[in-house]
Amino acid sequence: MSTKSILIVGSMAFDDLEFPIPVTTRTGEPRTIFEDVIGGSATYASLSASAFAPVRVVAVVGRDFPEATLEAMRARGIDTLGIERADGLSFRWRGRYHEDLAGRTSLETQLNVFQDFRPRLPADYGTTPLVLLGNIHPGLQLEVLEQLEQPEFCVADTMNFWITGEETLLAKLLRRIDLLVINDEEARLLSGIHNIARAAKDILARGPKRLVIKRGEYGSIYFDDEGVFAAPALLLEQVVDPTGAGDSFAGGLLGYLAERGRYDHQSMRLALVHGTATASFAVEHVGTDGVASLSRADVAARVARIRTLNQIAAE
Amino acid sequence: MSTKSILIVGSMAFDDLEFPIPVTTRTGEPRTIFEDVIGGSATYASLSASAFAPVRVVAVVGRDFPEATLEAMRARGIDTLGIERADGLSFRWRGRYHEDLAGRTSLETQLNVFQDFRPRLPADYGTTPLVLLGNIHPGLQLEVLEQLEQPEFCVADTMNFWITGEETLLAKLLRRIDLLVINDEEARLLSGIHNIARAAKDILARGPKRLVIKRGEYGSIYFDDEGVFAAPALLLEQVVDPTGAGDSFAGGLLGYLAERGRYDHQSMRLALVHGTATASFAVEHVGTDGVASLSRADVAARVARIRTLNQIAAE
Repeated sequence: MSTKSILIVGSMAFDDLEFPIPVTTRTGEPRTIFEDVIGGSATYASLSASAFAPVRVVAVVGRDFPEATLEAMRARGIDTLGIERADGLSFRWRGRYHEDLAGRTSLETQLNVFQDFRPRLPADYGTTPLVLLGNIHPGLQLEVLEQLEQPEFCVADTMNFWITGEETLLAKLLRRIDLLVINDEEARLLSGIHNIARAAKDILARGPKRLVIKRGEYGSIYFDDEGVFAAPALLLEQVVDPTGAGDSFAGGLLGYLAERGRYDHQSMRLALVHGTATASFAVEHVGTDGVASLSRADVAARVARIRTLNQIAAE
Repeated sequence: MSTKSILIVGSMAFDDLEFPIPVTTRTGEPRTIFEDVIGGSATYASLSASAFAPVRVVAVVGRDFPEATLEAMRARGIDTLGIERADGLSFRWRGRYHEDLAGRTSLETQLNVFQDFRPRLPADYGTTPLVLLGNIHPGLQLEVLEQLEQPEFCVADTMNFWITGEETLLAKLLRRIDLLVINDEEARLLSGIHNIARAAKDILARGPKRLVIKRGEYGSIYFDDEGVFAAPALLLEQVVDPTGAGDSFAGGLLGYLAERGRYDHQSMRLALVHGTATASFAVEHVGTDGVASLSRADVAARVARIRTLNQIAAE
């Protein structure tokens, strides 16, 4: 069976990142502030997914976005025809990570060309079997679905801003996707329930048949009507930049599903493990450096480490 | 091979507990404040461990501590000869749990008879093969060790107060135990390292050959020179009172080791899983109600659930 294609919609951006402790740059000097770092959910997710499967990206960049990045994406087999270059500046986010690297404060968000972004899919994207709707306005996520034949498997991400501000559109979206991927805070906000097991039940009743709840350094949990799976995160000795970890997780997860071509409960467990392995590379370097040249074999090696990490012998 | 005995040293106390949301009492009314709840590290740990193995307790209670509790412990095969009844009031702790049930604020600590507690072991306790040194002053933990022949397996717990205030004694203790069980904050404080993988390496270099780091609702991690194991916590729909979860975890862990009689890497993984299963009962009820009549079969059933929770199929 051949690997299927993935359509990824999301942001492509510049990130300005402030870290609590100095990070060694590629040229060897330690710094805490990194500016003009290539980022965005579609960038992280597509670089990650392309270790597994052919990827198509729908996004918008400004005239300042480096052509070299798009070229590097194409070199990994990513179809960039759906990336629109608009006349303006690219989306830019500035964030400061807290001492524990888990929390962060958004210092500035410049939407720029992203402000008027309306996803327009090239004609031949319409039949892509796997779709990742990155964290953008749920109205835009629905517009993407309108331009697609019913995909085999559709994953969406969202955030607190849309959960509280676009409840109706988000509710509509939840009824049209196969898997929702959010973090624990978002799950609590969406369900209004603090207990994660009950929050998950509530969310599954809103439409998606499958749910992943990300818990940062603690791993992730998967829920469907066949049960619950807890995927442990690897215990990495060097965690430098958590930016894009969730997007890389989603990219690796969907990449694995595209390769496998099945979406049953056991396949989903394996997909979470592959997403976890993929994300572990993202956080070890600043920006997309950890996933920009990621290979399928790299991921497989970390999947083996995760299997060792959580294995329980028979008694 | 027959199950070995366990010696448990720690506190026996009254807890006054304040919860963020009402909890239904045994008589059916909902309340947020529960006073005079039986608690203490030795109480939780011994009730838990007694589901697996014969247990001996060394502790002190005041004249106000109910004889019925000691009687109930004896009914579970717990040897209470080492529990001294002193002329004064029992140790008492008052705590308020935060909205998320993860954090808590200590409102009041009355040491009472615990103030002058010097553990005195009945003569025949000296050869107990497994020992749990609950979270008391490291000087007292060392005094217990002085009264013992070298045990087969010695576990200790500690806390921030001793880590910062009794560095020298704690360092001495760490060189004499087989396993240290602490939470992630304590591991960071003890090592001075935020990254958990590196913190664990640092702590193992201080003496104990094995380390468990507890992460509350996220489970626990085990480290030794053969590798790392991540034990997931069960996703419970009802979490009422986290008091004593860590002590019940330690009790279940040691109980399993007493039953198994081996302390190799794979046995330790299984011990963490049994500790996790045991602790899951503790948090479902106020005080010790969840572990007071716990059976080995109850634990086995939840161990099976944990196996299902973390299982990854072959590809």
